[in-house]
Amino acid sequence: MAAPTPTRPRRRGHDPESVLSIAVHVFNERGYDGTSMEDLARALGVTKSAIYYHVPGKEQLLGRALDRALDGLFAMVADERAAAGPAIERLEWVVRQSVRILVDRLPYVTLLLRVRGNSVTEQAALERRREFDRFISRLVKEAAADGSLRPDVDPALVTRLLFGTVNSIAEWYEPARGNASPDDLADALLKMAFNGLRSRPAAQG
Amino acid sequence: MAAPTPTRPRRRGHDPESVLSIAVHVFNERGYDGTSMEDLARALGVTKSAIYYHVPGKEQLLGRALDRALDGLFAMVADERAAAGPAIERLEWVVRQSVRILVDRLPYVTLLLRVRGNSVTEQAALERRREFDRFISRLVKEAAADGSLRPDVDPALVTRLLFGTVNSIAEWYEPARGNASPDDLADALLKMAFNGLRSRPAAQG
Repeated sequence: MAAPTPTRPRRRGHDPESVLSIAVHVFNERGYDGTSMEDLARALGVTKSAIYYHVPGKEQLLGRALDRALDGLFAMVADERAAAGPAIERLEWVVRQSVRILVDRLPYVTLLLRVRGNSVTEQAALERRREFDRFISRLVKEAAADGSLRPDVDPALVTRLLFGTVNSIAEWYEPARGNASPDDLADALLKMAFNGLRSRPAAQG
Repeated sequence: MAAPTPTRPRRRGHDPESVLSIAVHVFNERGYDGTSMEDLARALGVTKSAIYYHVPGKEQLLGRALDRALDGLFAMVADERAAAGPAIERLEWVVRQSVRILVDRLPYVTLLLRVRGNSVTEQAALERRREFDRFISRLVKEAAADGSLRPDVDPALVTRLLFGTVNSIAEWYEPARGNASPDDLADALLKMAFNGLRSRPAAQG
């Protein structure tokens, strides 16, 4: 399925960006461990010997791809909107941004979510994911401490469930298929998770 | 890691239940496509030629494993508690039961969630999953129609997000690790999704 149509002339030159994008597509389709350099060469439309001109190695591509996802998350963590204001509002902002990053960088985040730690590169990515989780966890605890989070749920469980919901979007979301826009998607998720699906008599009039 | 300790004598006979349980463990660890009959023989502690005495074939085991997950979900759909009463309460009950089934049958549900439709058996399982999704979707629409679901979210999106949250539990839940009990887990998920994480001033006094 990843093989190019033989009638169309192939581009011989690939910039690093298109190499990365094509490689991530192949990784997601075949699994990283199931992808050979030959598979990558085929998808890029270059010979098996020419692939090393474009790519030093598979794991280096994996590292770059995982950084693409993780850098997005850490840019958000460093944003002042994640640092100032009531904890519950910062948490909502972070969840909304996480949905946007997931949608914007869907193949990269999808790859990240499948990482199990089978190599040094994967372990480094998992460590960055855990660092992100600790950031979220602190935010949830802050919101619990200042009374803006309901007191009868365990903050650790909230962190898991909240980001489980965000990450589950990668399982089904296909922007090309006319799914909800990223903003509508984030709105629906925030309404469900922070205000609940049950309609409120008071709000209904 | 799946190889048995050589010092312990191996059981030569396996009942169908233990064959299935061991096979599903191997499928989840290596991926179904990456598992050979030889891998299964090794995990069962039998010779490569003896494996066919226990197992007619890999795909038959896959089918039985996926049915184990799906039969649980459809038994719930057929239960009267899924059919009688206000739609929103039936929906809550179904979500709670889904969490229980996921935890009770964790390896089987994990396997089901990874199915992509690569064979007749996988396609049949996906069709049953879609049937289950349609059942949930109808329930969400009923709750929207009777006014018990907040009116400002798309029922189709709610179905996706709600079961995305439930299914995400399979990514991290390990009963042996002292995680929350299935009931605490279901409680937290229901509180978040149906009533929201934000504390309510009225409820706080």
